Amino acid sequence: MAVYTRLGAEEMAGIIAAFGVGTLVSAKGIAEGVSNSNWLIETQADDGAARRFILTVYESRTEIADLPFFLDLLDHLAARGAPVPRTMHDREGASHRLHRTPEGDKALALIEFLPGVSVSQPTPGQARAVGGALAQIHLAAADFPGSRANSLALPAWQQLLRDCGRDGLESIHPDLGRLVERELALLAQGWPEDLPRGVIHADLFPDNVLMLGDRVTGLIDFYFACTDLFAYDVAVTHAAWCFTPDGTQFLPALSEALLQGYLAVRPLEATEQAALPLLARGAAVRFLSTRAYDWLNTPADALVTPKDPMAFARRLEFYADPAHAGIFA
Amino acid sequence: MAVYTRLGAEEMAGIIAAFGVGTLVSAKGIAEGVSNSNWLIETQADDGAARRFILTVYESRTEIADLPFFLDLLDHLAARGAPVPRTMHDREGASHRLHRTPEGDKALALIEFLPGVSVSQPTPGQARAVGGALAQIHLAAADFPGSRANSLALPAWQQLLRDCGRDGLESIHPDLGRLVERELALLAQGWPEDLPRGVIHADLFPDNVLMLGDRVTGLIDFYFACTDLFAYDVAVTHAAWCFTPDGTQFLPALSEALLQGYLAVRPLEATEQAALPLLARGAAVRFLSTRAYDWLNTPADALVTPKDPMAFARRLEFYADPAHAGIFA
Repeated sequence: MAVYTRLGAEEMAGIIAAFGVGTLVSAKGIAEGVSNSNWLIETQADDGAARRFILTVYESRTEIADLPFFLDLLDHLAARGAPVPRTMHDREGASHRLHRTPEGDKALALIEFLPGVSVSQPTPGQARAVGGALAQIHLAAADFPGSRANSLALPAWQQLLRDCGRDGLESIHPDLGRLVERELALLAQGWPEDLPRGVIHADLFPDNVLMLGDRVTGLIDFYFACTDLFAYDVAVTHAAWCFTPDGTQFLPALSEALLQGYLAVRPLEATEQAALPLLARGAAVRFLSTRAYDWLNTPADALVTPKDPMAFARRLEFYADPAHAGIFA
Repeated sequence: MAVYTRLGAEEMAGIIAAFGVGTLVSAKGIAEGVSNSNWLIETQADDGAARRFILTVYESRTEIADLPFFLDLLDHLAARGAPVPRTMHDREGASHRLHRTPEGDKALALIEFLPGVSVSQPTPGQARAVGGALAQIHLAAADFPGSRANSLALPAWQQLLRDCGRDGLESIHPDLGRLVERELALLAQGWPEDLPRGVIHADLFPDNVLMLGDRVTGLIDFYFACTDLFAYDVAVTHAAWCFTPDGTQFLPALSEALLQGYLAVRPLEATEQAALPLLARGAAVRFLSTRAYDWLNTPADALVTPKDPMAFARRLEFYADPAHAGIFA
């Protein structure tokens, strides 16, 4: 949510020149991205046309190691017509470059700017479109050669929640220790491994979807993308879209529309369909685990306000309630 | 340097619609402005053309009271061909609107987007262009009916530096208390009052100038603009452009070019020219006073890192040195 790296205009012009996308006309640091710095760039091509890009400077080492996966994936999906931004390649054909800064070399990439805004009160028509776009990337990535383990799967949730400690969890809410214990046991016992898998987005919240009206113009921020169960990605997207943000209210019309939208593009196998209730509990635990950890470990004077873990504890309780077994049927 | 107000996409679309500038296509929060929130907005007009704007939400009460001055000034200057952004007026003709937020009503304005980048290592050609643009706004504002007292003039510097206390100043640098005492006495005794005056920018640092090559495409951030001595604005701009940022090095080629650029558009009267050495010391004290105050009063955990006051103490020593009397001759 900030610009961490300072780039002078002359330095920026040099960076842009290396990509051969015209002359730098404007560069505005934008308040997007959690661990990297982003600028909205405008250039003028030789024919006078204005072009726009997002320049990302990666601040974290882990991301850099995975950059070829993330950036090649965007190109692969875009080439198959999925609504994701293309990466610009520099004059040597590379999708990212190293840039010398006072804090050491940092990787950067220049990514196509896509129109659209992130909705905060989705309509069923928008949820349907998002479900369809999710299925579209699952299909389009089928022949993508790259793979990346999901570093935020069940073992990571277990570790994060263990690190929170029972006392820590109960300091957030008196019932949270018990809830987590019950769910982790259930997930460890029943987590399916033999469902269809491939590249998933794994973080498709409304913030990561650009829309114009009911049309998805861009799926963005693939920095959690990994190889995992398609149906788990459906569950993550369900948890992200079908509740009020605080998790107090389930939104059935969005739920129905999202699932319909997905199924219209990629039908779920019977085993996937049957697993959805458990996968949804897993999706809720995934965000509960990172949020609880950040809640307990973010210094009071940090730049970032941690997000409320209870928003996902409430989703978890909802998914765990037998009265709601029918929502994925 | 942040986006303080959260605006949902639906809310944003409603705000943009009120200005009749087409349909919202994109809105990115940008990391500009110190006390207000800014978005780079793109709309599509009825004829399909893409248009870009800066949406500013004002967070501070003082700014709101002065908004008619700031925004009318932009329109006045733009209408006379000065390189400043126009303000968009809403369907009722207003240059700003009130918007209800959970924290109360906030004022907002939609301002023309201008191309250009802020240089960090100006060339003499760029300094010359900036001098010319400064003179241009001094002339173009001659028939502007509004006026606004300079709330950061000598009495404010005196108050801020008194609030720092001698101990506070000496905690920044052992010599700073003595330097400030000497300079405040000199300024109080000799500050000229009878020089040509009018609307000045009062904060024309490189950050507030958009350029493409040697051309000034936009002077921005008029939120310190006020009615004061034109020659004082020349002195402020000189202090802002003609040194390395840390104030350790004077850049004579930029100084010459900036002054030549100004004089080519608006010749200085002999009394103005003669006052420049003292006005430059005043300009250095102005930024020294706010920076020293912020340095001593910014909590360690604040979002904003205070800027080094010594950068302007060094400029002050430079201007006060009789060996440099010739730079404004």
